[in-house]
Amino acid sequence: MTHSIAILGASGYTGAELIRLITGHSSMKIKALGGNSKAGQTIAQVFPHLRHLDLPVLQQIEEIDFSSIDLCFCALPHKTSQEVIAALPAGLKVVDLSADFRLRDPAAYEKWYGNPHAAPELQKQAVYGLTEFYRAEIAGARLVAGTGCNAATGQYILRPLIAAGVIDLDQIILDLKCAVSGAGRSLKENLLHAELSEGYHGYAIGGTHRHLGEFDQEFSAIAGRPVHIQFTPHLVPANRGILATAYVSGDAAAIHDALAAQYSAEPFIKLLPMGEAPSTRHIRGSNFCHIGVVADRISGRTIVVAALDNLTKGSSGQALQNANLMLGLDETDGLMMAPLFP
Amino acid sequence: MTHSIAILGASGYTGAELIRLITGHSSMKIKALGGNSKAGQTIAQVFPHLRHLDLPVLQQIEEIDFSSIDLCFCALPHKTSQEVIAALPAGLKVVDLSADFRLRDPAAYEKWYGNPHAAPELQKQAVYGLTEFYRAEIAGARLVAGTGCNAATGQYILRPLIAAGVIDLDQIILDLKCAVSGAGRSLKENLLHAELSEGYHGYAIGGTHRHLGEFDQEFSAIAGRPVHIQFTPHLVPANRGILATAYVSGDAAAIHDALAAQYSAEPFIKLLPMGEAPSTRHIRGSNFCHIGVVADRISGRTIVVAALDNLTKGSSGQALQNANLMLGLDETDGLMMAPLFP
Amino acid sequence: MTHSIAILGASGYTGAELIRLITGHSSMKIKALGGNSKAGQTIAQVFPHLRHLDLPVLQQIEEIDFSSIDLCFCALPHKTSQEVIAALPAGLKVVDLSADFRLRDPAAYEKWYGNPHAAPELQKQAVYGLTEFYRAEIAGARLVAGTGCNAATGQYILRPLIAAGVIDLDQIILDLKCAVSGAGRSLKENLLHAELSEGYHGYAIGGTHRHLGEFDQEFSAIAGRPVHIQFTPHLVPANRGILATAYVSGDAAAIHDALAAQYSAEPFIKLLPMGEAPSTRHIRGSNFCHIGVVADRISGRTIVVAALDNLTKGSSGQALQNANLMLGLDETDGLMMAPLFP
Amino acid sequence: MTHSIAILGASGYTGAELIRLITGHSSMKIKALGGNSKAGQTIAQVFPHLRHLDLPVLQQIEEIDFSSIDLCFCALPHKTSQEVIAALPAGLKVVDLSADFRLRDPAAYEKWYGNPHAAPELQKQAVYGLTEFYRAEIAGARLVAGTGCNAATGQYILRPLIAAGVIDLDQIILDLKCAVSGAGRSLKENLLHAELSEGYHGYAIGGTHRHLGEFDQEFSAIAGRPVHIQFTPHLVPANRGILATAYVSGDAAAIHDALAAQYSAEPFIKLLPMGEAPSTRHIRGSNFCHIGVVADRISGRTIVVAALDNLTKGSSGQALQNANLMLGLDETDGLMMAPLFP
Repeated sequence: MTHSIAILGASGYTGAELIRLITGHSSMKIKALGGNSKAGQTIAQVFPHLRHLDLPVLQQIEEIDFSSIDLCFCALPHKTSQEVIAALPAGLKVVDLSADFRLRDPAAYEKWYGNPHAAPELQKQAVYGLTEFYRAEIAGARLVAGTGCNAATGQYILRPLIAAGVIDLDQIILDLKCAVSGAGRSLKENLLHAELSEGYHGYAIGGTHRHLGEFDQEFSAIAGRPVHIQFTPHLVPANRGILATAYVSGDAAAIHDALAAQYSAEPFIKLLPMGEAPSTRHIRGSNFCHIGVVADRISGRTIVVAALDNLTKGSSGQALQNANLMLGLDETDGLMMAPLFP
Repeated sequence: MTHSIAILGASGYTGAELIRLITGHSSMKIKALGGNSKAGQTIAQVFPHLRHLDLPVLQQIEEIDFSSIDLCFCALPHKTSQEVIAALPAGLKVVDLSADFRLRDPAAYEKWYGNPHAAPELQKQAVYGLTEFYRAEIAGARLVAGTGCNAATGQYILRPLIAAGVIDLDQIILDLKCAVSGAGRSLKENLLHAELSEGYHGYAIGGTHRHLGEFDQEFSAIAGRPVHIQFTPHLVPANRGILATAYVSGDAAAIHDALAAQYSAEPFIKLLPMGEAPSTRHIRGSNFCHIGVVADRISGRTIVVAALDNLTKGSSGQALQNANLMLGLDETDGLMMAPLFP
Repeated sequence: MTHSIAILGASGYTGAELIRLITGHSSMKIKALGGNSKAGQTIAQVFPHLRHLDLPVLQQIEEIDFSSIDLCFCALPHKTSQEVIAALPAGLKVVDLSADFRLRDPAAYEKWYGNPHAAPELQKQAVYGLTEFYRAEIAGARLVAGTGCNAATGQYILRPLIAAGVIDLDQIILDLKCAVSGAGRSLKENLLHAELSEGYHGYAIGGTHRHLGEFDQEFSAIAGRPVHIQFTPHLVPANRGILATAYVSGDAAAIHDALAAQYSAEPFIKLLPMGEAPSTRHIRGSNFCHIGVVADRISGRTIVVAALDNLTKGSSGQALQNANLMLGLDETDGLMMAPLFP
Repeated sequence: MTHSIAILGASGYTGAELIRLITGHSSMKIKALGGNSKAGQTIAQVFPHLRHLDLPVLQQIEEIDFSSIDLCFCALPHKTSQEVIAALPAGLKVVDLSADFRLRDPAAYEKWYGNPHAAPELQKQAVYGLTEFYRAEIAGARLVAGTGCNAATGQYILRPLIAAGVIDLDQIILDLKCAVSGAGRSLKENLLHAELSEGYHGYAIGGTHRHLGEFDQEFSAIAGRPVHIQFTPHLVPANRGILATAYVSGDAAAIHDALAAQYSAEPFIKLLPMGEAPSTRHIRGSNFCHIGVVADRISGRTIVVAALDNLTKGSSGQALQNANLMLGLDETDGLMMAPLFP
């Protein structure tokens, strides 16, 4: 049986990653590629690395015939996404990779994104797409909101610890080191090779990064009280990867146990033996997330480090995993490829 | 049906790449991993990026039970390889990734590698592993010699041109730009990040690179007369990729036609439209080779550029493609993954 | 004694490099920085790495008082440069880093740059700025045209060989590997870190690169007959550096001798011992150019490799060297810093 | 007047950096280069980027005539350094770049470095080389111990805050992102380009990094009570730079004031305006350290970020600055070069 897929916003990095992954899927077939700015172009023109694939020409989104589509990935920019999805056929299953449906509270959305939400009714239907924690809801959802890539990484570390009550909720610091593809294919001076290579820096320092909206929403819900963490992302000269270093107050063994209990049966989340730490080179191009726990020399302090690929487990891989659930397929279909090293 | 596989020399980059590829194969299963210096270690210790796989512990090669093995990949260093393969069961199918069986003439082997061959009888049996040109022989072979990664790239450009008689055989210049994984995992000062990043240089300049032995052997055989090309490799600060720029005397249209005639039905060799040139970013992590042809402003001169991934199409991907042929399987099994971009 | 300097186009990479170099000059002092798009900004805003310097605020070029300026560097884009320089005070010494005054023949200019020259009278006055070959003319010039960075590299190899008659003029191939800062600070997709890092490719293949205009002009003048070379640049994932590999027909010893005769007294051009080849890592951030000669295995063929930093010896360092000559100063003032390695 | 300099351990990265810096010094002249493993080699063989310099051949340390040397830099490995310095003429001024004399307490030395100190009498004389805080002692010292590069970066942030009493001493977290040259030129698998490029990771997590010995010693001395911070370094794919992100409890304005009061007159430490943060690209190759302060969204929490070049301000630049003081010279001589960007 074949499942017919459309990808909207196919000319960005997450769109290309979706195509790469679906190429290895056992039953999905791409039937439409939407990308308004590059409509009319072939995939070989937009992404020469995909030139060997027999794929449809990019077209205007409004020209796509969705009647035969089983599921639509939407990899459009924030704000555009909510308008486009609102106009899609009501029954069409949608996995959105933008930020538009991540925050359940319209006021929180407006606070972090600066504009009122244009599709608040849709927002109510949307299920938050962190697969390992919303599996049942995702399987029955019509619209799934992909998480922020940084937000996913931080939650893989912290959700089990908050739920298990093994860390101090008022002393959580998350220091991220992010590769540049997370910023997308946009033309900005600080994304140029000459600026970024051999240079690295923090950004959105002090609690202004939008993914904090997701952390606040999710962590407070788990804890049953407001939880606000400190979160500083840094841009490093690499193309793929997020390395999250979490500084928490809590016992290392209890923390390792809580993570082990949560993830032992998960196909993609791999907890390292106590005292070992992960590296982005070991998850690149894959859907795996490696997590390590190390006790600090100061009693009662623990460092937890997680690594995942922002384009795969952090966005397009997560999206495919959710789509598998929504279509009743094996959750890992198309996602078991090993990381690319070196 | 399952095909049982052994990999000798599993702790190097080509060994890791073989494991990555076989992970996506429909019928091969890895039954033994040989690596003498790391015998006793798990794959998670040797290659943490493969920790999610259920693989055998590395063992001494002499301790491996080959009786149930269908095919053995040998990814050992040059010279060691010929000794190890000579001691394997006589009927075992072997794909060797070293340089040991590439040169048919023992004198040529000794000239380029500096020592007499230790298994000259085996050398006679070995089939040269450039799949697209030795397909039938490979399918019936017991021992296939993987080509040099630079040698493969240059031959993809030049073999059809020499065979078609469309270029001047005495005016062939091949300028290669090679990523660092081609040098393997050896500890050398010039492979350190601090030395190589932000720096690039030519090496083995003037005709001393060993892959010239393969060029001489193959091109002379095709032409029916001695052919000696100029060949200069350069090391560039990237991990995967070979970009070969060939300067030839010949008509661009005739050259494009000869390449098109050769490769139009090939699953992995993609000829670009006349005037377009490839980039290593578009083949990384895949088994594809992109080739482009551009006419020079000087009449009768043409530039042909090819790009492939040295670890995949240049060695381990080629090896798996050959193994598929040797086992009577679909030649593309395990090899159709899209490149990783960005 | 102080020499007052203005820099127009101070917000690009060559402008920044000029400031860096002049910081170490014994008598030059920057009095004005012109940059229309960033007028009103401080240097700390435009180039945070120069924030420790006491420099004027950027201003509109037309607002600069040139009456007290001794020499003006013009680091503006092509075409803009000729218009701006035409409007400067007639007696002001100018070093132009753009392409606007490199080609003496207006027809050649129009052929390579696509538009008629807007200041043909100025073009007649301009001296070509390849210091080692136009030293006397530069010392007396009012307007010096900085060379293309690729053009400089190729000429350092080939001029002495053409002049000495030691190579075949119809068999010259120049294969360049160029770092990304040579493309400037412009916002183009292929200059993004995510596109360029781990990827490299040829461009302007087949004889369409504009620096060929300079090669044709200069080499033909030396030879007294038309000389057309083949020239292919490649973009590699590094920020600074040009590595030029020249394939010539000629005797290696004669070639080494010709280069030694030309450069033995030059402060910045260093000829390596026969058989050694240079690397970009050894000239980064400096005004040095390293040249190496290697005989090919094919008798009568020689490979000559040169390395320089495109932003220093290839443009801003050359410009300062020429400015020193024009002001009657020690030619090496501000330029003797050692390369930055690693 | 000329000051005669010897450099022991000239074949490592800090040795090369010392030579680069001294090249731009107004009165120092290198008279001897000691490096036992490469004795007999010229600088062009050991460091081709310094081939333009007229420097002595490397020699065995025991063969150097120290009678005419005014000051000796010792860039040898830990443990070797203390033995070599103990054997130098008693009156010779020495700047040591190793870890051997940083810790005043022999028990602390043995705890962090695993062996008893071989020259405890010398250790008593040694002055800790963090220039801005030990200026007077350094000026009168015979032996100055260069600080750890990570230790310097952290102290530039934290010393003024501890001294001013504006932060909670029990809640200090220092997350470092370090470039690879800090690991030296040693041949280790994880320093290979193919391993490090496109990959990054934490190391010595949990309080095991030796530079903690320096933090403990210095911060406790300032506070007059034991101070233990959390410190996690991460290796990122770049060659030069340390970016330190400090998470502290304290008022951002008070913190900015304390840093401003400390550094306003310092030539190399540049405090950014409140709310701005530094980048390693803006200090590369220079002796500058940029520091930025940002208030967190959580009241009473502040993030302070510092950037410096580990080979310059973090080691060889610091060493030269100290040598200038010891010789009664202008402290900034040879150190005012602008950073190399891009």
